[in-house]
Amino acid sequence: MKKLINNPENVVLEELKGIELAHPDLVKVHYDPDFIVRADAPVKGKVALVSGGGSGHEPMHGGFVGMGMLDAACPGAVFTSPTPDQMLEATKAVDGGAGVLHIVKNYTGDVMNFEMAADLAKAEGIDVEAVVVDDDVAVKDSTWTAGRRGVGLTVLMEKLVGAAAEEGRSLKEVADLARKINGQGRSMGMALTSCVVPHVGKPTFDLPEDEMEIGIGIHGEPGRTRMKVEPADAVTEMLLNPVIEDLPFESGDEVLLFVNSMGGTPLIELYIVYRKAVEMLEAKGIKVVRNLIGPYITSLEMAGASITMLKMDDDLIKLWDAPVKTAGMRWGV
Amino acid sequence: MKKLINNPENVVLEELKGIELAHPDLVKVHYDPDFIVRADAPVKGKVALVSGGGSGHEPMHGGFVGMGMLDAACPGAVFTSPTPDQMLEATKAVDGGAGVLHIVKNYTGDVMNFEMAADLAKAEGIDVEAVVVDDDVAVKDSTWTAGRRGVGLTVLMEKLVGAAAEEGRSLKEVADLARKINGQGRSMGMALTSCVVPHVGKPTFDLPEDEMEIGIGIHGEPGRTRMKVEPADAVTEMLLNPVIEDLPFESGDEVLLFVNSMGGTPLIELYIVYRKAVEMLEAKGIKVVRNLIGPYITSLEMAGASITMLKMDDDLIKLWDAPVKTAGMRWGV
Repeated sequence: MKKLINNPENVVLEELKGIELAHPDLVKVHYDPDFIVRADAPVKGKVALVSGGGSGHEPMHGGFVGMGMLDAACPGAVFTSPTPDQMLEATKAVDGGAGVLHIVKNYTGDVMNFEMAADLAKAEGIDVEAVVVDDDVAVKDSTWTAGRRGVGLTVLMEKLVGAAAEEGRSLKEVADLARKINGQGRSMGMALTSCVVPHVGKPTFDLPEDEMEIGIGIHGEPGRTRMKVEPADAVTEMLLNPVIEDLPFESGDEVLLFVNSMGGTPLIELYIVYRKAVEMLEAKGIKVVRNLIGPYITSLEMAGASITMLKMDDDLIKLWDAPVKTAGMRWGV
Repeated sequence: MKKLINNPENVVLEELKGIELAHPDLVKVHYDPDFIVRADAPVKGKVALVSGGGSGHEPMHGGFVGMGMLDAACPGAVFTSPTPDQMLEATKAVDGGAGVLHIVKNYTGDVMNFEMAADLAKAEGIDVEAVVVDDDVAVKDSTWTAGRRGVGLTVLMEKLVGAAAEEGRSLKEVADLARKINGQGRSMGMALTSCVVPHVGKPTFDLPEDEMEIGIGIHGEPGRTRMKVEPADAVTEMLLNPVIEDLPFESGDEVLLFVNSMGGTPLIELYIVYRKAVEMLEAKGIKVVRNLIGPYITSLEMAGASITMLKMDDDLIKLWDAPVKTAGMRWGV
């Protein structure tokens, strides 16, 4: 295992120290339990957004804490759910009196622990709503998931719902918006290589030198199929067609197209995929009105990519364009 | 070779098509010869900045074209210098009457071709100055370089000098600023793995599973030494100490610290390196006043990292904080 780490057990702790040193203008880091809150938390009168999950998907979620996006992120160990006490303490730390929305990716541990944290927070008088993201069309159930997995749409939801909360919308409005986004966004990913979880020290799965896995999960959970490596254009079709057909996206739709690196795939390849995806969508009469291209929800150093599509409208476009100031996504400020 | 590409010969062309489709608000892409210019080029009365080099280092340089940074970027084939006609046509396309600065990384082909392009542009009546970036302290000469290689400092220079040009400074002032930045910035990198140039199809060099290379170049050129893999803290010392000693950086200095991924190394590891680097600098009385952490000057999918330090002053801090709107770096707008 080749990684720029020290003791594998300290990876998340040392990462948090780095984030704390790098971004004191954006965030504060709390330890034991570990969570990251925006530097000006709690923001009085604003609905607060809390997300979290296993580490190893950076910049998600810690890199999305700040003005216009999350109020707090709870990092678990690599690919391991955070604990209810992290979520509870984060919820209490960011509650500004207008309630707290939990954005939860659909993995059994995350869902269970966020539910427990919500119950505990409610018992302390905090108004909590939760939305579960389950946008991955690849498989119905998976290793750690009943139902579909939550993947790339989470990034878009955190930006859009973050902007809505910043605007002063109510907890009910913000939660309804999050559910609407989950209803009209879909994703699918693929891997060219496995990744290595630091405290495991060996690849999560074996993938022969001439094969790829279509429909991979962000922790290396099995996808739909393994096959010989195909050209980028064929891979793009294998990812985008199931995404289009699932909702379905239709002629006349306006969409945000998000081409994401799983970590090890460089930007030059993402643009090649993006190009093919836009050509396919144009042929179907679907118009890309916004995009996001880069490594935003990763699986450590895994090579591969995912495609997410979200049906947009005027409100969502306005929220996407609204200012955001985080380590991982920033514009307008 | 596992990559999300089609025909290896079309990698750069298809990437450019993707950039053109993705960012029409930021850039225009010209083909044959290939170059990228900001969407509003030429900007009348503003000094124009042109850079370029082999592809494979994305987001540099094409991702840095836009308001507050470059006016044009000339992408060569992967790890191959662009041609003088690309540079000449780009220079002509962005000249707004106030002259053009060429920002050239110190590789023999880049330097020679930019010199030829500058001569041709001058013959057409365009005022051209050039600055050569040679910040890599690892080795004196290298595979394609007489003298030191130009690496991470190029990213910082393009941001800072871009802001100065946007402010309305003259060609002489902007060129002097670029030379000053080159005089007070230093870098060094390392690799855990090689990368694969698409049209070559096999790793640029062999690195055994338990070894790393300290002082690597951004095209896989040999560094100072190969050794068994060491923990991140020891690697950080091996990179940062030569950087500090070379200038030298001294107690009381204020610096920008840039921790860069060579492509395959994920953000979680960069923060671990950043943390150690800041601890080392604090112990020496050197204050980090700005930072940049992420994959900005990459070597395709190579795993590894580089550290760049630039001595800052009030003018440089103001220029760093100035608005920038490019695909690869954006804030304030």
